[in-house]
Amino acid sequence: MQPLPPKRAPKLCNAWTTCCFPVTILSFGRALTMVNETQHTCSASSSSRSDGGSSSGSESSKDNSRCSTPVLDADRHERLREKMRRRQDAGDKWFSLEFFPPRTANAAVNLISRFDRMGAGGPLFIDVTWHPAGDPGSDKETSSMIIANTAVNYCGLETILHMTCCNQTKDDITGHLQKAKRLGLKNIMALRGDPSGEEWEEEVEGFNYAVDLVKHIRNEFDDYFDICVAGYPKGHPEAESYEADLRHLKEKVFAGADFIITQLFFRPETFLKFMKDCQAIGITCPIIPGIFPIQGYHSLRQLVKLSKLEVPQEIKDVIEPIKDNDAAIRSYGVELAVSMCRELLDSGMVHGLHFYTLNREVATTEVLKRLGIWKEDPRRPLPWAVSAHPKRRVEDVRPIFWASRPKSYIYRTQEWDDFPNGRWGNSSSPAFGELKDYYLFYLKSKSPREELLKMWGEELTGEESVFEVFTCYITGEPNRNGYKVTCMPWNDDPLATETNLLKDQLEKVNRRGILTINSQPNINGKPSTDPIVGWGPSGGYVFQKAYLEFFTSSEIVTALLKVLKKYELRVNYHIVNVKGQNITNAPDLQPNAVTWGIFPGREIIQPTVVDPVSFLSWKDEAFALWIEQWAKLYEEESPSRMIIQYIHDNYYLVNLVDNDFPLENCLWQVVEDTFELLNSPTQQ
Amino acid sequence: MQPLPPKRAPKLCNAWTTCCFPVTILSFGRALTMVNETQHTCSASSSSRSDGGSSSGSESSKDNSRCSTPVLDADRHERLREKMRRRQDAGDKWFSLEFFPPRTANAAVNLISRFDRMGAGGPLFIDVTWHPAGDPGSDKETSSMIIANTAVNYCGLETILHMTCCNQTKDDITGHLQKAKRLGLKNIMALRGDPSGEEWEEEVEGFNYAVDLVKHIRNEFDDYFDICVAGYPKGHPEAESYEADLRHLKEKVFAGADFIITQLFFRPETFLKFMKDCQAIGITCPIIPGIFPIQGYHSLRQLVKLSKLEVPQEIKDVIEPIKDNDAAIRSYGVELAVSMCRELLDSGMVHGLHFYTLNREVATTEVLKRLGIWKEDPRRPLPWAVSAHPKRRVEDVRPIFWASRPKSYIYRTQEWDDFPNGRWGNSSSPAFGELKDYYLFYLKSKSPREELLKMWGEELTGEESVFEVFTCYITGEPNRNGYKVTCMPWNDDPLATETNLLKDQLEKVNRRGILTINSQPNINGKPSTDPIVGWGPSGGYVFQKAYLEFFTSSEIVTALLKVLKKYELRVNYHIVNVKGQNITNAPDLQPNAVTWGIFPGREIIQPTVVDPVSFLSWKDEAFALWIEQWAKLYEEESPSRMIIQYIHDNYYLVNLVDNDFPLENCLWQVVEDTFELLNSPTQQ
Repeated sequence: MQPLPPKRAPKLCNAWTTCCFPVTILSFGRALTMVNETQHTCSASSSSRSDGGSSSGSESSKDNSRCSTPVLDADRHERLREKMRRRQDAGDKWFSLEFFPPRTANAAVNLISRFDRMGAGGPLFIDVTWHPAGDPGSDKETSSMIIANTAVNYCGLETILHMTCCNQTKDDITGHLQKAKRLGLKNIMALRGDPSGEEWEEEVEGFNYAVDLVKHIRNEFDDYFDICVAGYPKGHPEAESYEADLRHLKEKVFAGADFIITQLFFRPETFLKFMKDCQAIGITCPIIPGIFPIQGYHSLRQLVKLSKLEVPQEIKDVIEPIKDNDAAIRSYGVELAVSMCRELLDSGMVHGLHFYTLNREVATTEVLKRLGIWKEDPRRPLPWAVSAHPKRRVEDVRPIFWASRPKSYIYRTQEWDDFPNGRWGNSSSPAFGELKDYYLFYLKSKSPREELLKMWGEELTGEESVFEVFTCYITGEPNRNGYKVTCMPWNDDPLATETNLLKDQLEKVNRRGILTINSQPNINGKPSTDPIVGWGPSGGYVFQKAYLEFFTSSEIVTALLKVLKKYELRVNYHIVNVKGQNITNAPDLQPNAVTWGIFPGREIIQPTVVDPVSFLSWKDEAFALWIEQWAKLYEEESPSRMIIQYIHDNYYLVNLVDNDFPLENCLWQVVEDTFELLNSPTQQ
Repeated sequence: MQPLPPKRAPKLCNAWTTCCFPVTILSFGRALTMVNETQHTCSASSSSRSDGGSSSGSESSKDNSRCSTPVLDADRHERLREKMRRRQDAGDKWFSLEFFPPRTANAAVNLISRFDRMGAGGPLFIDVTWHPAGDPGSDKETSSMIIANTAVNYCGLETILHMTCCNQTKDDITGHLQKAKRLGLKNIMALRGDPSGEEWEEEVEGFNYAVDLVKHIRNEFDDYFDICVAGYPKGHPEAESYEADLRHLKEKVFAGADFIITQLFFRPETFLKFMKDCQAIGITCPIIPGIFPIQGYHSLRQLVKLSKLEVPQEIKDVIEPIKDNDAAIRSYGVELAVSMCRELLDSGMVHGLHFYTLNREVATTEVLKRLGIWKEDPRRPLPWAVSAHPKRRVEDVRPIFWASRPKSYIYRTQEWDDFPNGRWGNSSSPAFGELKDYYLFYLKSKSPREELLKMWGEELTGEESVFEVFTCYITGEPNRNGYKVTCMPWNDDPLATETNLLKDQLEKVNRRGILTINSQPNINGKPSTDPIVGWGPSGGYVFQKAYLEFFTSSEIVTALLKVLKKYELRVNYHIVNVKGQNITNAPDLQPNAVTWGIFPGREIIQPTVVDPVSFLSWKDEAFALWIEQWAKLYEEESPSRMIIQYIHDNYYLVNLVDNDFPLENCLWQVVEDTFELLNSPTQQ
């Protein structure tokens, strides 16, 4: 259950963003010597802490070799502090986003969607605050711990979990840290927290200050976590003086903190002075300014009260007259933030900006876009979003079935110790997680029942009504009641851009009862920089085999099987019903690679496969979704429910792969031939 | 050191030769259940002994899952008896070849070349006889044991080692068997052997008959070996009667033999009667007729005397008149063998033919070609010849450097326990074997010194004389003394067909001092059945990145490095001199895949890579060959020797990969640009 210590992966000198193919002159007598020396060289140049002792260093003799899967992206193996250093060295500007935990499960679902959307802009990390009163370390869907867990594991975001220490026992704190480690969290923001009573007294041997927490983390967890601490550009309100507060900050850094995020401030010069003062007393770690785009009159007052900051008069003068005009205040807030950020970045002293989002999207996103540091990069390291859990860093292949439900795949494989290097049948791998209630939190539709009924039909009159729902989802046209079908039980996200390439064909077959839930076109060597199908480093070529997955009736399956005889060798298929009756022409239990990429100086990457073994786990989930998400919208025994139940009980789930990726996709012809056979006189 | 027990690999129902994509209907609740049940199903249908107890079965829980590398060829995981059964079930006719151990080291080198040439015809197996007087179990280059070892490990041939038992101690025999197992031999022909004295007495508790050896093998080694025994179509000359001999044969089979090879015979009806008689008394295992194509008068007389057989009068009548005309006798022998084999095959009772070759090539090859069962299949399972050692069965990737010296690669990696799944840097893998004396047996040139001097120059006058030798090797034109250069120190075999695709360009650059020793063209998705570059199962596509490896002067390297700056990302290079000074732009220590294939229903196979770590081992070998094979042809201190020594000491070994495989190969342009730069006025 314990995640592995972070692998000492060869340090990659930022293999494909900044200094691709550095010329290295090496001189060694024997091959193995070279391995070690090279790594030593690289690691010294790219790690900011290579001289410091590391707990995992001693047990890394095995890890000290090349890792077992091709490394596509230095990012996946770096610690946050290393990424920060690398971005700084490369002259890249970056940003990060702060969120607080939601109050309700519904708000949690919305916040996670926000993570996905704001994650698309490329934050270096996000952080989640910690409120001792809110049971932040619990297993509740809304706790700080679980929200941070979701951000790391399901949204693939580098995440810092805040943690406060005052009024808590050592055991409690150690317990939280252990849990965080177990969940794959790697970064802690160490804070004192607000004392609970009015009259607060230092406890002897207790946790009185953030520095105590920093020391505790380093004592108990050595170098496992990256630690962040808070800096106060105006001095902490409770500090004896600005200078005394700077000395406290230095203590925290010298106790083991890796970088500093500051409290918000209103004038750039406040931060720049603070930074110079820090440097003057010997604080050399990164210091990241906390930016608070003013988003409303009341939230500003609230925050100012809590932080005991004073709003400068020139800001008050602007805000007071427009205090009831939210839009005007936000627009001013954005303006102000943009100009302050510009000044900070232009100073040359600031490389990253930390945003207090207040869990809102619009203002922060606008500031970032206007600064030009929001990077909605269509380039992906792999065709699917990589999880940020250290255990999953080397994950380089997934079955295609969960392509539209990646969170479900992560959830159902979260107990795996090892991510299959392309294979699923190994008896030493654990099985896929069961379809339990809890997973519904991650998987459940984001739309309420009423909306789903409008999309999927208040009343179904037959299988054709179902065909219509699928067809409307594909075409984007409103259904007969005028509602657009924007989601389906089998999709976490809206239709992929890529699917548009197949839209016309998909519409045609769905109308006739080939109910498609997953598909991809064939691709014969497009550049890896292609905005739609590209992924991975520059200079490569990506490939796909055409794939089509659908539910359909047994009548169609019977005809399809006859047709498929003509396509032997060319088309691989798996056809299974809810009882698990499985018809396939796959050779043995081997996975079929359906997405792969060829890159300069690397081994082949094949991140997506059709795997016969995991297909049977997916089948359970795919069939269950008919009932859990669709049938249950209707009354028991109602005709609508019985129609979905009938489909669930009698339809087959089919997947088809056209192996001849350089030729025109033949899968549409296969379907065409099937309908032709069904309609031919001899068949009737 | 002990080889692993043979893996119980999933039985593959002959994945790509006969029944590709069998439709299987499976019905299982969960994925893992399916894995096991499927394998059970397959294994029952393809293994002739699935009901018998197997020693390795009990320890196979881990192996019982899908193997860790894509399985390309059922052959690689089958036992000989299973291959035999599968070929029989598929209606394929096959053949096998018997050889005896050579007397001298030179004869051994020739015999190994013959294995390679006759191996190309596709024998199901070869066998090597055992002569107790010749120290057959020793480590001599010429012993039965070492010849069989070479056939399996270096020539990739399924091999049966004969072994006799009479007049030997149990310990001796066990020792031989253990050694055979250690070397990767899996099949034993269990024989009595000829008693040494005239008056032979049975030893109580000793090995008196072949059946004792069969029992001993099964007792001591359980099911590890496949066992073959001898059958006598006319009855053993020492048996009491034909019927008594049949009963002895039945005993041998029931003691654990898997199949029978017969003594030679002269008339097809002799064998067919024998076979029916065997079946009548309950012998059901395969019985393979031993075919002896008459190749000369004296060898026939010799054989007949040893085997105590009588030559039928009709054959004597033909032979006696032409006994001094070898060609006529051989031609008659071929005729006779062909007609007998045809009759045997047409009977429907015979599926395989075993040839007593007498270590000769011509007659047997001709018979096989006329029968149409010599299958010089240009299709290869992988781009390089797969070794038949059980330990290496899963080997699926090699560095390109040894492409022209595969035996050297096998030799230098023979101690490895595990074949790297595409990687070489792992610190737990042993290093490459040293360049020791013994390997010269496998690696040394097949030509005598005088011939080499004629090819490579009696006297070298400068580096240009060396350029000329390389150029003549590429073009096939005679050198200035009129001799063709048919081999070079860096090549086990003649120039690959594929290299012809690059001939003109290679000639041009060699003339100018780019001394090429390895190259391949780029291939962008040719069918896997392509006669020149194809490999692997049908229906696939193969790819290559262009590769060029050469020695060249430091002056050229300096210019080349300048030119390569223009080709960053596109061209990867490694440039190293004999001292190990290494210049590279390879990202980290990752291998670059340069040959790969995409096949129906399978993962990607990438069997050839440019690996930075193993390149440094190859470098040692490549530089050593200048001295060991070339410089040493000349007197010490002679100018010729000093020229080679100079090249060895001062040249660089360079490899270049063009990563843009879909575009025209740019490596020639790189070389062109280099010479242009060298000749430009600013350079001078």
